Parts: sequence; structure tokens; C-alpha cells
Amino acid sequence: MTPQHDVTPVPAAAIGAWDQEADVVIAGYGVAGAAAAVEAARAGADVLVLERTGAWGGAAAMAGGFIYLGGGTALQKACGFDDSVDNMAAFLNAAMGPGADENRIADYCAGSVEHFEWLSGCDVPFKAEFFGEPGWEPMGDQGLMYSGGENSYPFNTIATPAPRGHVPQMSNKKQGEASAGYMLMKPLVETATAAGARALYDVRVQRLIVESDGRVAGIQARRYGTDINIRARRGVVLATGSFAYNDAMVAQYAPRIAGRPAASIEQHDGQAIRMAQALGADLAHMDATEVAIFVDPQQLVRGILVNGLGQRFVAEDTYPGRIGQLTLYHQDNTAYLIIDGDSQEEAMAAPSPQLMMRPPTWVCDSVADLEQEMGLAPGCLQATVAAYNEAAGRGEDPLLHKKRQWLKPVGSPVGAIDLRESTGGFTLGGLQTTLDGEVLHVSGQPIPGLYAAGRSTAGLAAWGYASGVSLGDGSFYGRRAGGRAAKG
Amino acid sequence: MTPQHDVTPVPAAAIGAWDQEADVVIAGYGVAGAAAAVEAARAGADVLVLERTGAWGGAAAMAGGFIYLGGGTALQKACGFDDSVDNMAAFLNAAMGPGADENRIADYCAGSVEHFEWLSGCDVPFKAEFFGEPGWEPMGDQGLMYSGGENSYPFNTIATPAPRGHVPQMSNKKQGEASAGYMLMKPLVETATAAGARALYDVRVQRLIVESDGRVAGIQARRYGTDINIRARRGVVLATGSFAYNDAMVAQYAPRIAGRPAASIEQHDGQAIRMAQALGADLAHMDATEVAIFVDPQQLVRGILVNGLGQRFVAEDTYPGRIGQLTLYHQDNTAYLIIDGDSQEEAMAAPSPQLMMRPPTWVCDSVADLEQEMGLAPGCLQATVAAYNEAAGRGEDPLLHKKRQWLKPVGSPVGAIDLRESTGGFTLGGLQTTLDGEVLHVSGQPIPGLYAAGRSTAGLAAWGYASGVSLGDGSFYGRRAGGRAAKG
Repeated sequence: MTPQHDVTPVPAAAIGAWDQEADVVIAGYGVAGAAAAVEAARAGADVLVLERTGAWGGAAAMAGGFIYLGGGTALQKACGFDDSVDNMAAFLNAAMGPGADENRIADYCAGSVEHFEWLSGCDVPFKAEFFGEPGWEPMGDQGLMYSGGENSYPFNTIATPAPRGHVPQMSNKKQGEASAGYMLMKPLVETATAAGARALYDVRVQRLIVESDGRVAGIQARRYGTDINIRARRGVVLATGSFAYNDAMVAQYAPRIAGRPAASIEQHDGQAIRMAQALGADLAHMDATEVAIFVDPQQLVRGILVNGLGQRFVAEDTYPGRIGQLTLYHQDNTAYLIIDGDSQEEAMAAPSPQLMMRPPTWVCDSVADLEQEMGLAPGCLQATVAAYNEAAGRGEDPLLHKKRQWLKPVGSPVGAIDLRESTGGFTLGGLQTTLDGEVLHVSGQPIPGLYAAGRSTAGLAAWGYASGVSLGDGSFYGRRAGGRAAKG
Repeated sequence: MTPQHDVTPVPAAAIGAWDQEADVVIAGYGVAGAAAAVEAARAGADVLVLERTGAWGGAAAMAGGFIYLGGGTALQKACGFDDSVDNMAAFLNAAMGPGADENRIADYCAGSVEHFEWLSGCDVPFKAEFFGEPGWEPMGDQGLMYSGGENSYPFNTIATPAPRGHVPQMSNKKQGEASAGYMLMKPLVETATAAGARALYDVRVQRLIVESDGRVAGIQARRYGTDINIRARRGVVLATGSFAYNDAMVAQYAPRIAGRPAASIEQHDGQAIRMAQALGADLAHMDATEVAIFVDPQQLVRGILVNGLGQRFVAEDTYPGRIGQLTLYHQDNTAYLIIDGDSQEEAMAAPSPQLMMRPPTWVCDSVADLEQEMGLAPGCLQATVAAYNEAAGRGEDPLLHKKRQWLKPVGSPVGAIDLRESTGGFTLGGLQTTLDGEVLHVSGQPIPGLYAAGRSTAGLAAWGYASGVSLGDGSFYGRRAGGRAAKG
């Protein structure tokens, strides 16, 4: 268990002298903190960003860079895709639940086109090119991709498919090199700096400083072994990320993801959540997680995925993060990808970064032998493959509606990729906030002077996920929080 | 959404005069409150119990009355069953997870035999007779029953099966009449009263009263339209139950159970949780829920249960609450019970309260027709029934290991009972406490003067469940909280 540090609020009356002050003090210089800094500074506030590490970036700078946007952005249009606010909301309401907040989704969708313009206005570059292959990320510097299963069953029956994964353009993307998330963060931080936002690095926020009437007045932090007190004249914005790396919190709130944090950074220790909880802040959707499954989507679409009972359970051509969630939560983290020799070869030759390409764990001449070698119940996999093959031969998948282009009867030799315990991810739950980024007390009222955004808050996703939702709601509500805090 | 009342703590300095005082003040007179009252009073404390309704009882008095106990209780022995502390812990660690707290389970199991003696010493009556039929509760006044799938797959491969559902004896049980839970509560309250505990009814607790150093000093409550202040000289014990009836909290923390509270009472509005959260109390397992599926287990064991893809997913003869959880969470709340005419007749004639006996929604001559009528994907149910029948004919169930006694090929006519949206339940998450019932602050330290037990706390169950776990950990840790609070 992670030791919990003392997050008990400090009375403002106990502060002798302030070491730093600003109108708006932001904890964390990831995407939410940067967006908050831009908006607060542009609104005329004196802004100070406190960052725990030696540099800006946060998890965002390490991320694939997807920003989930739609409703008819300039990039969607330039790539030839139609979308509408209602259509985007219909998808998100279905894909981010159960438990997704319809009001927040409506708000986010309504502002999505403007938010794309705002990012472009901050010089975040996007190349008007669509990447249509199955994959976790574009292979090159393409700017748009399906990133949530919008064009797959069941979502393609709920809303008109439109790709909404907007990816900043790498000027010189090479495999394994810096990520597109860097190309989001660099211009945002430059914009914030140009607008006058200051930053202090190597500062670890510890406790909130509170007036006797409950108003948040600043932050106590640790820097080079010394406690420092930073006064926030108008407001504090918490943006220190998720709790994926706080073992105790994960055990309490999201035990399924315990021991398998991924696509996150060690600084995501839930500190902002705990600091606000100590003031009576409310939480939401703390069990929600993003889940990746460690296999290449080029393989997934060409195989059939079965659980420990040899049964299919999801269309293999949907968003791989959805496959990860269903595997971890609904299938006891047990899945096997059945793929024949030809399909495996085809996958290996397909456009893909190859990093997650997996060799088969078992290969046999027949499904009967494979089933036995895998230790599955006799007959279960044979029945599944027989039913799949019979329908695939007709170009149909009546059970799960995988798209016709990926339907082909499973032949021989046939392999199985062992995907047990092959998932990882990060937490999505956090502080309950208003659409203006005000942190809500359990009594239902905003805590005066306290704002939050990013993955320390409960955002768009309550249970499902789409790549780009975290950078999306982090930047979108980071702006809101910064703008609101600047008003004091 | 439920409007959230103001739960902001009241400074003790602001209290002019106390309307009531006691050494130990307990909020809620259900099972946890009653057990706390007994132990605090026996420890010499002056005890005052505040109850929102006009009478003691809480959800416990309405419940089936199961108390989950084992490790070799006198009742288990009298009924001829062997059990051990380790065996009980092995079962609970498997069945209450993922995320179950091994330390708490070890503690509970180690104290289980003594806790049975304590309940008996409070004159809670148990009849030394085992009820062995499938069912939610015993048909008569039998005192012991399997209540968590201990004798079913997979738990029967993890720990030696032993029944642990201990049921207080109704003196004159008739179908539909008062529940066994009443026979638990009546003697506990009488014992508390005899030990000197006082009670005040029609008191709705509102806010905690707190000293400037953070120590809880009392409770502010509402009685007949007036605020009253109750001083707790040694400690406050929160025992007001779950948040199953707080729509806003359910949406934030356990959205899957939204709109379907069951086996709970309207007073379970999460008030204790919110009052403690306002002081910075930590939470755990807020998404965990007990889930009932509304069908008679005598039908379940005789049929085969399939999901929306026509696939089996759980041994039909396990704990029906487990079937409910898997249906709601893993199968999108979609299940159908396939049962032939003979089996349905047999179920109807079996010992059962019949309350949850369901007629088939569809009946056909063949599985092919049934599948079509149900609107399932062509062939999926036929394949499932064919595989089941083939193995059942040999007395085997290689896929899910239903016990041999219930295996019989599905014949004609064949029906299906529509079990979509046929679940309901209550929430299991709540305040994070020590094994002594101290409420933990998010900093990891106990909040001075504040204790809690029962379903306002995170107890034994993190995700799974067994009937009797709530009355079990509520009474067990209610005692701890009361005893600890009495020490001040």
C-alpha cells in the first residue's frame, strides 16, 4: 500500500508569510493545467503553475496525443467526414456509460468545434489526413482516426460513424520516438507562457490552505525539502492527474486495475483528489478505468476473440480499448485470439508499429487439437469456430456483427494468442465538478476558490472510453476551470 | 437526482447549549447500531441511539435474517458440518473479490465462532436444522443454509463447502409474514435496553459537530422540525446504512444499480457517508453492490441460463446473488432461463415460497423455434443446448460444472423465461474504517471521536457477495465500534 501523506487542510491564519503568490495558482502542468493557464492568463490573471517534475508535460506529453473532438470540426470536414453535435452526443452517451453524465456530454459536444479552433489558435498542428487502418494510433503523421469504435457494432447502429480522434502532427515522426502528445503540450505551454503564465518546477503540492469561512486561499507545497506556502488570490486549480499510481486508492476504488497501471506516469498519485477530499469534496465514477489490451488491432480484426469458455464476446474490429475493458471486467481478464496461419501472416504484413504484434502461443492443425492444448472444455471452441466459419463463409456475423471486410473462415494451421492478464490502464474517476470546473462539496455546493480539471476529476467517461477523451476533457474543462478561477 | 442536504460540519464553539448528551451517541438503530449499543453500554458507557424512524429495526428487521458466520460455530456442528477459520477465509477471499480486504476477512473469520456465541448470548434464537434446497431463504424455521455458493463451482474447488448462512428462528414463521431479521433485531435491542442504552426516535441526523482540533464532539439533528444538538462525550458511531436510496450518490458511485434498489429501505440515503466525507473521511468499494435476480432458484437449477448471445455464463446452481451480479455487470443485465416443460413443472412442485416463481415468456416445440421467437442470432442457442444436452446425458457439465444432480438434457416443449432487467440490489461501499470501527481520514489516520459500522462502511464484500455478509459485518464491527467508542 502507498503510504498516505497528510493532506489535512492548513488554516490560512496559521500562515506567517507567503513564499509565492498569484491570482490563479495551478497544480500540475499537464494538459489540463496548461489549458487552464492559457485561459486564466488571457483573462488577465497573474498565473503561477506548480509542477512536481522538472518540466511541463505530464502524462499528456507521453500520450499518443488523441483529442476526442467532433460535431463537424474543420479537420473532420477537410478529411471528408460529416458529423454533428447530436450525432457525437449520441455516440458518447452510448459509449461512455453506463453512468455517463448526459449534461456534461451535451456541453462538451456543443463546444467541440470551437475547442478545435482554440487548439489550432494555440498553434497545435493537425494534418488533414485520415488514417483508416486498424490500430491504436496512426502509423504516420495523419491527423484523424476512429478512436472509439464509432464505425463498429453496436455503435454504428446508434450514431452515424465519424472519426473523432484528432492527433497533433509530429514534424518528424519516427517509430518509438517522441509522441504526438508532445506536439499538443509544447504549443499550449508556449501559448500560456506568451500570455504571461509563470511556472515553478520541482514543487510537490501537499495541502490546501483554507480561510476560516471555508474559502481556499492557497497551497502548501514541498520544494527541495522545505515547505512553501503559495497564496492564490482568486483561486486554485487542481490538475495533477489520476490516481493510477496510488496503490491504496486503486485498491479502495478500482481494484480490478490494481498492479497494472499503463499509459500513465508515476506522478499520478491522486494527490489532488485527496487534498480536495480532505475539504469534503465529492467524487464520482472512481471505479472507472481505461483499459488497453496488449495485442495489435491488425491481429484482432483478423482473428476471433474468445473467453475462457471458448465463447466470442465482442466484435473484434471495435475500439481495442473497449475489448480491453470487456476482457478485464466481464471476462475475468481471460481472452484468447484464435487466428489462422494466413491471417497471422497478413496481420504481420499490415501497416502497424508492430510493437504489440504477438506470436501465437499455441499452433495446431485442427481446432479440436488447439482446444485440447489450450485446456478449454471439450467442444466449446470447436462449436464457436464452426458457427463463425459457417456464417463468415456467407459474409455474415450474426452474433457480433464484425464488419464484412474482416470475415473469413478460420483455416488451418490455427493458432491461439494467450491474452490472459494482458491488460493495463489508468483510472478515470475523480473529483465531482461543475461544468465550470468548480469542485463540489458533498453538500452539493462548490467549494469557494477551488477548481479542478483533467484526470483528477470525473470527466466524460463513466465506464466506457474512447482514445482522446482524457486529453479532450482535460483541455476543454481545463480552459473552463482557468477562466472561472480568473474571475475569482 | 436526490437534493443533497448541507452536511458541512458545525464548529462545537458555535453550539450554545446541548439538547441531549451521552458518552456514546449512535446514529441509526439497525443491526450495526444495536450491536454497538450493546457493547458500548456493557462497557459502562451512557449510550444514546438516534433513530430516524419511529422504531428500531432498520433494514435488518426487514431482511431475511442471514448472518454469515463460520469457522465451526455451534450451529454448524449441531447440523453436522465441519468448518475452519482458514476454510472460511479461503472462501471469502475468493468470493468477496476482486479487491476484498484480506486483513478484514481474516479478522472476521477469526472472530466468527465467538460472534455466534455472543449473538446466542443476546438471546438470538437459532434452530439446529439445515435447509438444503435451492432457494433464497429457508422455507421454514431452519437455522442454517448455504448462502454464497460455497458448494458450487468454482468455490467448491477453492474451499471445502460449509453452509454459513445462520438464520434466527421465527417462532411462528408463515409465508409472507415478518422476517427472520426481526428475530435478530428484537433480542439485540432488548439486550441493549437492558444494558442501559437509551433511544430517541424520529431524529434525523444532519451534521457532525467538531472541536477546533478536529475531534468529533456530537451530532446536529432534526426532530419535529427543530434542530437539536446532541453531545457525545466519548464518541459518535455512524450506523445509518447504505446509499441505495440516494439517487445522486448511486449515479456517481454505482450507476449500474441506478433505479433498481431492492432489499433495502428508503432511509438508506447515504447520510452518514456524506457527513463523514465532509470531514475528509475516506471511502472504499463504492461501486460494489449486492444484486438479486428475480427468479426462483428452484427454476434456475433446473434450467440453463444464457446471455443475449445465447451463451451460458454461470453454473445455474450457485448462489443466486452471484448470478444476479454476473447478469447485471457482465451480461448487460440480459439473461434468459431456458427450461423445458417437465423441469418447469418439477420446479413449481419443489419446496419454495413461490414468490419468485416465473412462468416462461416463450414456449416452443423446438429450440430452433424458441431461438427465433426470442430474436437471438440464428443457431447460437441451438449450439448451446446441443452441447449442454450431449454432456448432461453423460452426467457432466464440462463448461460450468453444475452439480450432477441438476443435469438433465433439455427436452420439448421448451420455454424461456425473460430475465432482462430482472435484477435489483443495494450498495456495499462506504466509509473506510479500521478493524476497530474508527473512521479513516484520507490522510490515513482515524478521525478522533468518529466510528462507523454496517452498510455505511465498506465491509467484507468488495465486489462479490454472500447472503448474511451485511448483517454479519454490521453486527460484528458494530460491536467493535461501540466498544471502541466507549473507551473514548
